[in-house]
Amino acid sequence: MSLTSFTLHGRDGAARTGVISTPRGEIRTPAFMPVGTAATVKAMLPESVRATGADILLGNTYHLMLRPGAERVARLGGLHKFMNWERPILTDSGGFQVMSLSGLRKLTEEGVTFKSHIDGSKHMLSPESSMEIQRLLGSDIVMCFDECPALPADRQRIEQSMRLSMRWAQRSRDAFGDRPGHMLFGIQQGGLEEDLRGESAEALTSIGFDGYAVGGLAVGEGQEAMFQVLDFAPGQLPEDKPRYLMGVGKPDDIVGAVKRGIDMMDCVLPSRSGRTGQAWTRHGMVNIKNARHQDDPRPLDEHCTCPACRSYSRAYLHHVYRAGEMISGMLLTWHNLHYYQELMQGMRDAIAGGRFAAFEAEFHAQRAEGDIPPL
Amino acid sequence: MSLTSFTLHGRDGAARTGVISTPRGEIRTPAFMPVGTAATVKAMLPESVRATGADILLGNTYHLMLRPGAERVARLGGLHKFMNWERPILTDSGGFQVMSLSGLRKLTEEGVTFKSHIDGSKHMLSPESSMEIQRLLGSDIVMCFDECPALPADRQRIEQSMRLSMRWAQRSRDAFGDRPGHMLFGIQQGGLEEDLRGESAEALTSIGFDGYAVGGLAVGEGQEAMFQVLDFAPGQLPEDKPRYLMGVGKPDDIVGAVKRGIDMMDCVLPSRSGRTGQAWTRHGMVNIKNARHQDDPRPLDEHCTCPACRSYSRAYLHHVYRAGEMISGMLLTWHNLHYYQELMQGMRDAIAGGRFAAFEAEFHAQRAEGDIPPL
Repeated sequence: MSLTSFTLHGRDGAARTGVISTPRGEIRTPAFMPVGTAATVKAMLPESVRATGADILLGNTYHLMLRPGAERVARLGGLHKFMNWERPILTDSGGFQVMSLSGLRKLTEEGVTFKSHIDGSKHMLSPESSMEIQRLLGSDIVMCFDECPALPADRQRIEQSMRLSMRWAQRSRDAFGDRPGHMLFGIQQGGLEEDLRGESAEALTSIGFDGYAVGGLAVGEGQEAMFQVLDFAPGQLPEDKPRYLMGVGKPDDIVGAVKRGIDMMDCVLPSRSGRTGQAWTRHGMVNIKNARHQDDPRPLDEHCTCPACRSYSRAYLHHVYRAGEMISGMLLTWHNLHYYQELMQGMRDAIAGGRFAAFEAEFHAQRAEGDIPPL
Repeated sequence: MSLTSFTLHGRDGAARTGVISTPRGEIRTPAFMPVGTAATVKAMLPESVRATGADILLGNTYHLMLRPGAERVARLGGLHKFMNWERPILTDSGGFQVMSLSGLRKLTEEGVTFKSHIDGSKHMLSPESSMEIQRLLGSDIVMCFDECPALPADRQRIEQSMRLSMRWAQRSRDAFGDRPGHMLFGIQQGGLEEDLRGESAEALTSIGFDGYAVGGLAVGEGQEAMFQVLDFAPGQLPEDKPRYLMGVGKPDDIVGAVKRGIDMMDCVLPSRSGRTGQAWTRHGMVNIKNARHQDDPRPLDEHCTCPACRSYSRAYLHHVYRAGEMISGMLLTWHNLHYYQELMQGMRDAIAGGRFAAFEAEFHAQRAEGDIPPL
């Protein structure tokens, strides 16, 4: 019997709900994974992240390999122990961050050499080294090492890149080996092109993975184009494995992705927004730095049960943001992660109950109302 | 029957332990008050501050009057509700911060006019306006408005300043009026001069206050001179009222002050240190940014029960400090406040048990050992 599994418990149209089981705990899907880039979900203690309802975190291989270093994390007992999060962790492959953050990259068939954005030191990432780093970190869900062009890009660039990623997917699979209790996910590429996405899906399926990511989206194409791809891409991937949309997104991106058959997502948005005074509620985004909040005794959302909404007024949140106090980022991040997890729970319940369309309609209706008017 | 009281439960030499009772809760003395300058103890949620054992917070009148403004706080239900701290709050008078933070001050018999360090706006603080602002904030323990020269200063300057502060103490008392459930503390001045301190104590006692602060220390005179003053100053103040040493201090300052009869203290040190990578333990100060910690799997202090010590290694704390992550300040502040409150509890128990001398000897012996050696 495998130590990991994915069980679907309900469907509603293309949307699905289920559970990924791992030795470190269950992941209820559709799942939103808060991002813990450098072994911390910024501004949060891990017990608070768990209290929002998160079943799994994402860690960034690129950041962790540079600081504190994967070997060091391994010597200290692995990433879970290091960061005090006992539940599942998914790590990305490092490929995306190398492209977006590091300096002086060189891409070859072998992999990518690059300079650290922290100290300029030279490093190499390849399918083999990425698998080794993710093993050292102790990741529960390991991502294949891939390459991903920013969009828009011409078809030839997308095609070449996708085929390179498929060769790297095979090398990732070979390097990963047999690690009971740990899952390896392949990453579909192919930009906005249905045939290239299909070719990629076939290549990955023939290799065989424990889950499949839709990669190469949320890289500049916009929501409309992303949804057009999601109208076909999830269906190209195996029905019985989890499907992960990387780096997405805003609440309406997430609802649209789940509607189209996505099971897992991650994004820095709720935590990053929380540090810049932006709160996400049922009514859209509230900019707490706006002076309209300075005398407002009401919570961000009177129906929200997070600590920020239970115990603090908009006036307080406005004050601490303007005063540059850390509690501003702490409370707004908590609120945002709570809202995101509540949204996921709402979708899981709606799918299980066969009422996803009604859920989606209500979601959009509440957003259309906009934030509560000033007093 | 008064709504507030101070009851002494034990003495050991000059050291005392007791309880200040207020409608918002009891304050066990000797008490350390974490500083919540701008309606937040930086990097902490109030429930976490309470979990460290704090019975009371200090709020800064100067900061709060400028932002968000005392009238605004009053409209929003007072400082306790605003910042989600239901227990007692002591506010300073604003006088000290005007001198240390604001620009273009002008001191007259009436009070101090100054420019805000935030936006340059012009403000006035006097005994009457300070009492009004502290009333609007809803402070449980209100401090007299006083003036305090930095040390060293010549005797004439100290004497003139002390006498002005005594006239302001009478005006503060008159302006405070009768507010059941709220306490007004006088502030002794007189620099390092025993006779001036005595004159100040007599002036305050004849006015009559609910408690008495030893003011004008921790302003540059050094520990030795401070202790010399504390060898006589507390004894000049009424035995049956709490004695508060303002703005103190490091752990050894605190132990020495309690030994000399001080009941209450406040200081930004544990929270400020926490944000700059400095942790206070039984063995002194640990600088977590030092590279010696980067591979150390041990906690800051294996005997400490705070969240930072229970769940994180020095290696982790080093990593998140170096990575500039907010969790660094959050965990180290929590640890420092926990250590400070544990120190206060240890002193309360030792005084009650008549073994303060042994406690003090052990305190100094542990510090003399220094931090644990590197692995």
